[in-house]
Amino acid sequence: MADLLIKCMAVLTMDGEGDIIHNGEIAVRDDVIYHVGPSGSTPGDFSPERVLDYPRMVALPGFVNCHTHAAMTLFRGYADDLPLMQWLNEKIWPLEALLTQEDIYKGTLLCCAEMIRGGTTTFADMYVDMGRVAQAADESGMRAVLSRGMVGFGSAGEKALAESIEFIKQWYGGAGGRVACMFGPHAPYTCPPEFLKKVIAAAKELDVAIHIHLAETNDEINEINEKYGQTPIALMEETGLFELPVLAAHCVHLNDNDIATLARHRVGIAHNPQSNMKLASGVAPVTRLLEAGAVVGLGTDGASSNNNVDMLEEVRATALLQKLHTGDASALPAYQALYMATAGGARALGMQDQIGRLVNGLKADIILMDMHKPHLYPLFDIYAQIVYAAASADVHTVIINGRVVMENRRVLTLDEDVIMAEAQRCAELLVQRSNIAKKQQ
Amino acid sequence: MADLLIKCMAVLTMDGEGDIIHNGEIAVRDDVIYHVGPSGSTPGDFSPERVLDYPRMVALPGFVNCHTHAAMTLFRGYADDLPLMQWLNEKIWPLEALLTQEDIYKGTLLCCAEMIRGGTTTFADMYVDMGRVAQAADESGMRAVLSRGMVGFGSAGEKALAESIEFIKQWYGGAGGRVACMFGPHAPYTCPPEFLKKVIAAAKELDVAIHIHLAETNDEINEINEKYGQTPIALMEETGLFELPVLAAHCVHLNDNDIATLARHRVGIAHNPQSNMKLASGVAPVTRLLEAGAVVGLGTDGASSNNNVDMLEEVRATALLQKLHTGDASALPAYQALYMATAGGARALGMQDQIGRLVNGLKADIILMDMHKPHLYPLFDIYAQIVYAAASADVHTVIINGRVVMENRRVLTLDEDVIMAEAQRCAELLVQRSNIAKKQQ
Ligand SMILES: [Zn+2]
Ligand SMILES: [Zn+2]
Repeated sequence: MADLLIKCMAVLTMDGEGDIIHNGEIAVRDDVIYHVGPSGSTPGDFSPERVLDYPRMVALPGFVNCHTHAAMTLFRGYADDLPLMQWLNEKIWPLEALLTQEDIYKGTLLCCAEMIRGGTTTFADMYVDMGRVAQAADESGMRAVLSRGMVGFGSAGEKALAESIEFIKQWYGGAGGRVACMFGPHAPYTCPPEFLKKVIAAAKELDVAIHIHLAETNDEINEINEKYGQTPIALMEETGLFELPVLAAHCVHLNDNDIATLARHRVGIAHNPQSNMKLASGVAPVTRLLEAGAVVGLGTDGASSNNNVDMLEEVRATALLQKLHTGDASALPAYQALYMATAGGARALGMQDQIGRLVNGLKADIILMDMHKPHLYPLFDIYAQIVYAAASADVHTVIINGRVVMENRRVLTLDEDVIMAEAQRCAELLVQRSNIAKKQQ
Repeated sequence: MADLLIKCMAVLTMDGEGDIIHNGEIAVRDDVIYHVGPSGSTPGDFSPERVLDYPRMVALPGFVNCHTHAAMTLFRGYADDLPLMQWLNEKIWPLEALLTQEDIYKGTLLCCAEMIRGGTTTFADMYVDMGRVAQAADESGMRAVLSRGMVGFGSAGEKALAESIEFIKQWYGGAGGRVACMFGPHAPYTCPPEFLKKVIAAAKELDVAIHIHLAETNDEINEINEKYGQTPIALMEETGLFELPVLAAHCVHLNDNDIATLARHRVGIAHNPQSNMKLASGVAPVTRLLEAGAVVGLGTDGASSNNNVDMLEEVRATALLQKLHTGDASALPAYQALYMATAGGARALGMQDQIGRLVNGLKADIILMDMHKPHLYPLFDIYAQIVYAAASADVHTVIINGRVVMENRRVLTLDEDVIMAEAQRCAELLVQRSNIAKKQQ
């Protein structure tokens, strides 16, 4: 890869709230950040092959999408405005059952194109046929943390666990180090403790983390309480899950003990505010989690419950929702929201030594936002401007692992026109197959 | 103006949920919609001087921003994440007191540029020096409903009322019919009943409506209850306000009687979900208002509490927030949310016979959204796609009163570069003046 020098209006390192370098520059050597500092501070021995000189842009770490199901972009807008169980039972699950490996590959490519356009550089995914997801991530140039989703009942559970182990052995560290893997037991209500214990043993053996949905809805809380007489978080602690690094999606319904448990075990929490709103799940107690010292990142969840994978929307929703929820307009200020989408997300994935901040030695995952737009004037406070006024379409350039993957809003790694056309075709064929399946019933 | 023919993937007339014309066309003659129908259905006598042929775009009515303070774009990002009263007392009001007429003109121009870029074609504004606001609206090509904001205490109230009358006489029907006016008593807690009665008399005489803030915060409810022993809505009914057409911003804290009163009098309600979240004001009972038959439109409020004037964000926030608030994922479905931003907003302004729908004879306020983007594939449901997945940057073309004011994301009526630079300069000088004023205290 060509060595790069990026010069811009400001560098938000996200390595501390005061850490804005006005009129800054970033030197990228191969896949890492070689130097960050004020204009002209790069050591003289660095001779970049390319200089990106953008005085009206701000550089920040690429967004870390801590929870999604990328291929579900194929279901975008297929079923909305329905009660949760009707949406799942009648719409999403029947269609999901008909997905081919090729659908999953093409849906993931579409999602990667969209994520890159919105400034996301790393995503954590849970789905099936993860080899094809990994292939799509590899081709897109993105960084990905992939889990084969497992429902832990009977032989299907055993098969999913075997596939997970195989997938992890094949792909961990793949795509030039851009792909990492986790185990993906779906949730406490779909994975009983005896299955989870097998997953925990396998995860310890392979030394990988676990990605799971936890405490998303009131129904889940009630179901787990009826079956086990405790909360999902307490049940997971008892089962031994938190002896491993865990990425827990949602964590909406928590009592004080749950919050303390999540913080004590440094569980990475993926907060998905727009999905939680759209499915009427509730509001996660994010400010209380942060006060307790918990590790919180942000995610989009799948595009069927969002309906996009736009991290800046999640940043804004997080800040606004916590202000509303706490009744305090000073709650969850701009820096904290942006931190959760970058450095906080990296911590939630256990990748804080690789990504999430713009500091020397970390991977060069960098985005440039164009601030020369009417909705971004005047400029008083860069954090507030990005969190409360900017949009994903303001992302101009995206660099992942030292490689420019989007420039001037053109994705360089993927053929967007082909991907859009194929996604449309996959979606239409899926609905055709679904109609045939319904008739045969 | 040149007669136009617009051909596109679909026309959303917003004249009923089923009213989508796939492969449709719209003929525009001068400032009005001459014909809407399927491709090829325009009468043969119509020979357009220009054809906009966009098979990947969707046409819909321009957004109606029912409540803003346009010039407050100058305060964007100046003060955020503060408790409401500290934000107002220490930050916003001291700076507002230093605004010049020129600042207001330039801040409004910036806001118009941003609104056009986001597909807004009509805005309802309440501020001061409204002649300069009208001038900016006129130059931008936008449609505007303008109110001189009035605080009704003592001689300041009398002066504001006199200015309002003068402004209305000068500008009502101005800018080729694009400017309308209302009286703008600020709120029940800043305008006592005796002042409001004078405003009501003047409004009856001039036959104009009233734009007011109502029931925005719990503090307001408590203050009005302590002073008058009733709710703001009941107080306004008693004072005679609802004998006139009224545009009421916020209406967050309402009891059942208030809801019935607002519906009975067909008060136009401007719902501002993101401002209500950011200032921690609360959640307006929108689904209950709609069930009661109330007229509800959407607004952005000023950019200092938002921090942009992006109507699509408000559409999405409205739908997501009502689902969360009611605990029902089927609440406030996509069509209803989009209706509130278009036809519903037109009704809230009493302009349903002029704007808000794409039907023959109404003013040609039309936007084209480009659906050929990764985040808008695949396409199952156009309403859901626009409400849950699209962004204001997807607005490609904006037509107001038959005139193309934005094309391919370039605003044709305004010099955006000059406006951005001047807004930055105005904002910096304001802060300088504010620092000098602080030292002199
Ligand atoms: Zn999920
Ligand atoms: Zn207001």
